[in-house]
Amino acid sequence: MGFLSSRVFKWICWLSVVAAFFLIGFLIGWFARPTQSARSDGPSHAVLQEFLDEMQAENIRQHLRKFTRLPHLAGTEQNLRLAERIRDEWLRYGLDSAEIVHYDVLLSYPNETKPNYISVVDDAGNEVFNSSLSEPVPEGYEDVPNIVPPYSAFSAKGQPEGDMVYVNYGRTEDFFLLQRDMGVNCSGKIVIARYGKIFRGNKVKNAILAGAKGIILFSDPADYCAPGVRPYPDGWNLPGGGAQRGNVLNLNGAGDPLTPGYPAKEYTYRYRTDEGAGLPSIPVHPIGYNDAAVLLRCVCVLHLRYRYLLIDFTLFSLTLIFRMNIHTINRVTRIYNVIGKIRGAVEPDRYIILGGHRDAWVFGGIDPSTGAAVVHETVRSAGTLVGRGWRPRRTIIFASWDAEEFGLLGSTEWAEEHAKILQERAVAYINADSAIEGMYTLRVDCVPSLHTLVYDVTKKISSPDEDGVSLYDSWHKKDNWTDDRDAPRISKLGSGSDFEAYFIRLGIASGRARYTKNTKTEKYSSYPVYHSVYETFELVERFYDPSFRKLLAVAQVRGALVLRLADSPLLPLDCTEYADALAKYARAIAEAARKHPDELLEYRVSFDALFSAVDNFTAAATSFHERGEHVTSNTVAMEVRMANDQLMYLERAFVDPLGLPGRPFYRHIIFAPSSHNKYAGESFPGIYDALFDIQNAPRPDKAWEEVKRQISIAAFTVHAAAMTLNPTA
Amino acid sequence: MGFLSSRVFKWICWLSVVAAFFLIGFLIGWFARPTQSARSDGPSHAVLQEFLDEMQAENIRQHLRKFTRLPHLAGTEQNLRLAERIRDEWLRYGLDSAEIVHYDVLLSYPNETKPNYISVVDDAGNEVFNSSLSEPVPEGYEDVPNIVPPYSAFSAKGQPEGDMVYVNYGRTEDFFLLQRDMGVNCSGKIVIARYGKIFRGNKVKNAILAGAKGIILFSDPADYCAPGVRPYPDGWNLPGGGAQRGNVLNLNGAGDPLTPGYPAKEYTYRYRTDEGAGLPSIPVHPIGYNDAAVLLRCVCVLHLRYRYLLIDFTLFSLTLIFRMNIHTINRVTRIYNVIGKIRGAVEPDRYIILGGHRDAWVFGGIDPSTGAAVVHETVRSAGTLVGRGWRPRRTIIFASWDAEEFGLLGSTEWAEEHAKILQERAVAYINADSAIEGMYTLRVDCVPSLHTLVYDVTKKISSPDEDGVSLYDSWHKKDNWTDDRDAPRISKLGSGSDFEAYFIRLGIASGRARYTKNTKTEKYSSYPVYHSVYETFELVERFYDPSFRKLLAVAQVRGALVLRLADSPLLPLDCTEYADALAKYARAIAEAARKHPDELLEYRVSFDALFSAVDNFTAAATSFHERGEHVTSNTVAMEVRMANDQLMYLERAFVDPLGLPGRPFYRHIIFAPSSHNKYAGESFPGIYDALFDIQNAPRPDKAWEEVKRQISIAAFTVHAAAMTLNPTA
Repeated sequence: MGFLSSRVFKWICWLSVVAAFFLIGFLIGWFARPTQSARSDGPSHAVLQEFLDEMQAENIRQHLRKFTRLPHLAGTEQNLRLAERIRDEWLRYGLDSAEIVHYDVLLSYPNETKPNYISVVDDAGNEVFNSSLSEPVPEGYEDVPNIVPPYSAFSAKGQPEGDMVYVNYGRTEDFFLLQRDMGVNCSGKIVIARYGKIFRGNKVKNAILAGAKGIILFSDPADYCAPGVRPYPDGWNLPGGGAQRGNVLNLNGAGDPLTPGYPAKEYTYRYRTDEGAGLPSIPVHPIGYNDAAVLLRCVCVLHLRYRYLLIDFTLFSLTLIFRMNIHTINRVTRIYNVIGKIRGAVEPDRYIILGGHRDAWVFGGIDPSTGAAVVHETVRSAGTLVGRGWRPRRTIIFASWDAEEFGLLGSTEWAEEHAKILQERAVAYINADSAIEGMYTLRVDCVPSLHTLVYDVTKKISSPDEDGVSLYDSWHKKDNWTDDRDAPRISKLGSGSDFEAYFIRLGIASGRARYTKNTKTEKYSSYPVYHSVYETFELVERFYDPSFRKLLAVAQVRGALVLRLADSPLLPLDCTEYADALAKYARAIAEAARKHPDELLEYRVSFDALFSAVDNFTAAATSFHERGEHVTSNTVAMEVRMANDQLMYLERAFVDPLGLPGRPFYRHIIFAPSSHNKYAGESFPGIYDALFDIQNAPRPDKAWEEVKRQISIAAFTVHAAAMTLNPTA
Repeated sequence: MGFLSSRVFKWICWLSVVAAFFLIGFLIGWFARPTQSARSDGPSHAVLQEFLDEMQAENIRQHLRKFTRLPHLAGTEQNLRLAERIRDEWLRYGLDSAEIVHYDVLLSYPNETKPNYISVVDDAGNEVFNSSLSEPVPEGYEDVPNIVPPYSAFSAKGQPEGDMVYVNYGRTEDFFLLQRDMGVNCSGKIVIARYGKIFRGNKVKNAILAGAKGIILFSDPADYCAPGVRPYPDGWNLPGGGAQRGNVLNLNGAGDPLTPGYPAKEYTYRYRTDEGAGLPSIPVHPIGYNDAAVLLRCVCVLHLRYRYLLIDFTLFSLTLIFRMNIHTINRVTRIYNVIGKIRGAVEPDRYIILGGHRDAWVFGGIDPSTGAAVVHETVRSAGTLVGRGWRPRRTIIFASWDAEEFGLLGSTEWAEEHAKILQERAVAYINADSAIEGMYTLRVDCVPSLHTLVYDVTKKISSPDEDGVSLYDSWHKKDNWTDDRDAPRISKLGSGSDFEAYFIRLGIASGRARYTKNTKTEKYSSYPVYHSVYETFELVERFYDPSFRKLLAVAQVRGALVLRLADSPLLPLDCTEYADALAKYARAIAEAARKHPDELLEYRVSFDALFSAVDNFTAAATSFHERGEHVTSNTVAMEVRMANDQLMYLERAFVDPLGLPGRPFYRHIIFAPSSHNKYAGESFPGIYDALFDIQNAPRPDKAWEEVKRQISIAAFTVHAAAMTLNPTA
């Protein structure tokens, strides 16, 4: 081997080594480079902490202060001004966009020249007693203009006169008791019902069905005064001159009564007012307990262990007649939502919505401004993070809804206008109405698939009541889910707030959280001064949450839910929790049917198909969940997207476009507001309603056929939802 | 510098060089590695060509031969055997899966012991004439069992007797003419209508509305014989003894009459037969023209320029009465779909469906077996490619539907069962019913967004009529879209085949293609032997397509549509074509309304909102299209997915869950089957129906309010669809 070949050999070695290193470098480079993967933009716990820490109780106090100085009734100039202010502040806080969106909906106001009131009329035709025309205004607010007096929005006009019948809470069971067991005929009478237990619109509906020609609603101290608490301003109880405003519609999710199913835009066809959805056909009016005491003294009522003996006072010497004087005017009026957005970095076409209303009956001290203040602080915190360069994986939409008090109108119209987009793209809706209704502990109502996330985030948030304890732990201690599991209680969603169209009509996973009372010991309805002029800033600052730490905790819960949903690569929705819930609901409804063992046999009614569907669902959910656990930071983006689509669309799978019987806008087959109380959630509502009072059905055969049909629809829906969790091909 | 340092220096050089090469290698590796991108698995034109070349005319001939040896009536053993055979062959051809899915639906058969027929009865009660009980069976098929005689499926049972009125085609306008202009009362009469122009179910509905107690349907040589063509087997005309079978339902998309809206599974609630959807309340029976000539000779009819003068033959000496003897039995029966799949490589959760029915009235020589043979060859070709290692980007689903002839039952039940999944995941549905109905040129009916793709693929397929000419060119030459544009004519989808539930109910982009006659010169309806026993293999082999090249071309069109939809990274759906179509339809419906200028003024009816919505849509579509042009092979996968989702869901945006008035399963606001002819497609059907015959509305004010409401719904829907094309956040 000569020099040359040695040199060649050396060069070959050289080149080989260089080539080898090049190759090694190439291979390392090739494999080191991340291809787009699930968690490359991972769920940063640091971001969540930063987001939670950024929120401040003091800021919430200030937001609440500024939102409650003036009344913000829907459809008024003042509420538009507040919308503009919120839009401007959201933009300043750092949202990518914030805009005002309007609709022209049917609202309802007292006639400014002819006040509404109730009178007692003697046989000479003299009004011997008239109910108050307004509430005594709290100190410091005497000069505030535009305080709307207590009224029942959308009441029919009229001046009906007649005898009066006391109908307790005006529930279905109250009317059954009166009419069936006691033979009291409400037809042609004015009825008087106490507030509480159920949504006031259901009371009005029941009165109409009973043939009443008017209904008076009053706040009973038994329902609106906590024992040992003084009336506002010395305490948080309802004063005798206070009364509860509120709409008395039975919309069943229709939104604007004149444009059911479609957004109330300029181009939209409007029904005539007499064709509108959900409008009551009789006058309705609310009074306080001072006035109620006078009226009720005229009606002799003996309570006897849930039996009522009504003595018609016309039997006595004095003939007294009651008269309602109602001049309320329904009017198409422009309302304004504020819609703010943070564009998602990776999946801008996936939306997490945090929405709550802005309109208030008067000052909205609790309802809705504690909610609006919490949203505001959430926007500020998220905007601050955006200012620091952060951006969530998905788009976050913040909404300040208008005209919630008039039937969830702002939120429903926006849902109607964007229904097609939301159906395709909305992951979840978190509601932000009143953030507090009591001082005891957290209350959460949400879809089963959010249970796990709720527990998870509350473990990361501090309790406002005890230092060094997590919100989860203090909540767990105070309100354990005793019957089924050792965890804090989470309830079904009912309705009565803005999530309704998103959840019940469109099938978007939804949840709400607030601070609440101790429901075991505090039996009054909602909170005493609800919808009265006494809902002021001071009510919250002096009594409900002086440190504003409860509101901060609620802000952190709502905000953390939104952030985790917006930023986790794999959506934090747990389908196995849905499986457990479905199993529980199926057992409960089958149990209810077993009260009629003879009919179950006679009409061959079986729940087997439903149980079998639930079993299918459970198997599919378990298997989906196990596959989800294999999603790692190396999973390709498309696979994560596909799994997320399955999770997102699971809630959608429970929606039936045909709707529930007689309620075309309530389309969720698993959950709906109870037909007897809009506030309460009912599971398997189609079956429940078919079974309701079935022992008195005029045609039992037809009634039981309907039960079977509803079981079949429920079974199909659960089967179909299970299929969506199976591997996609 | 000593030896050592020189050596160190040399080593440093060495290391530097090695490190440099390592770095270069690393960098090249890093950047050379493709991150997941739009077109990394690009739309291979080579694959499309390979797929088209793999299909063979001779194979289609053989498939057709084996599918047409025996009758394959839905619900029979023979049709189940064929399903099993198809499933097995699909698996052998290379599909990932193929399975049989069953439903239990209401079918309808003649009573085997009591035949259906029509008689003429003299005044002594003797049946002086009876219509034929069956068709003369064609040569070679004499020993085939289970040939069902001509009947009208789902006819009511009964033996009505009475006078007869000839109602021409039985169209709405025919009944208007008879009843309004000529004062002929059909109430209590038996009516006789000729087949053709409209779907037979609409004729039956019109007869019921007119009060008829029975309806006879006959094939008039004017409609079922081409001039200069001999009757089968010497030509392709209908013999005098042939008659058209067919269902006479008015389902309006409900599917199985006993389970409207839900899949007819074991657990599903079934209505009683007398509550079923769309079932006619009167007897119906079809006859051939030999029998019809006898009956009509008994009814003196003078045609006078579309005016009819009916002379009641009871005026003459002989009193003749007609009697229908109908004993058809409706029965819940099991049907079977075959569902085959090729799993998508990249997006398995996106589905392209190629579906056509398998059930036939008798041999199904054309209907449906030309379609089934074409699907079979498409499956074979796609399966062959899969065997060679190819796999489409998205999942392809192949379907062999059952019981199409009984109201699109197999396809509708499957759509109902999988509605939730399809709504989320289905990109397009290509229908595969009869592939030929004439010998002239291609016919395509599809959604506007498929126009561009149809033109594109037909340019890549050879004309079966002229060598060296593309299918596009020969089609263009023979059937130019004269009124609007210089391109081959493409029509709106009507109904009457299995795409209905997918398109009109679920809003999935759909299309169909077949070879057709020259509609300018050939005026007979469909093809002469349609639904008769003379639809044999020989009919196709001898007359319609001896070379089987026409069927091959249709197979290639249907297959290429499927392949391009399944395999293109960016979906080949063109929203700008939808914009053009919407503009055209809006102009047309506004033009139709302008026939009532006084009412438009009086009731303040305006189409402005609709035109403005169309303008919005056009702007959104144009801008979307431009953004789409920037999608390149470097676009990240998620962005392509998002754009594709917008394209896929565009069709869904036209669906309104509330449905069209009185037709809850027809939910597409832009297209629906005409209320007067299921076969025809109507654009803006809600407005069209509201305007129909409005000059005779009993309450013009209400009628025009409904027109305004429908314009508003259309405008909203187009606005909302436009929004789905805007940037997603």
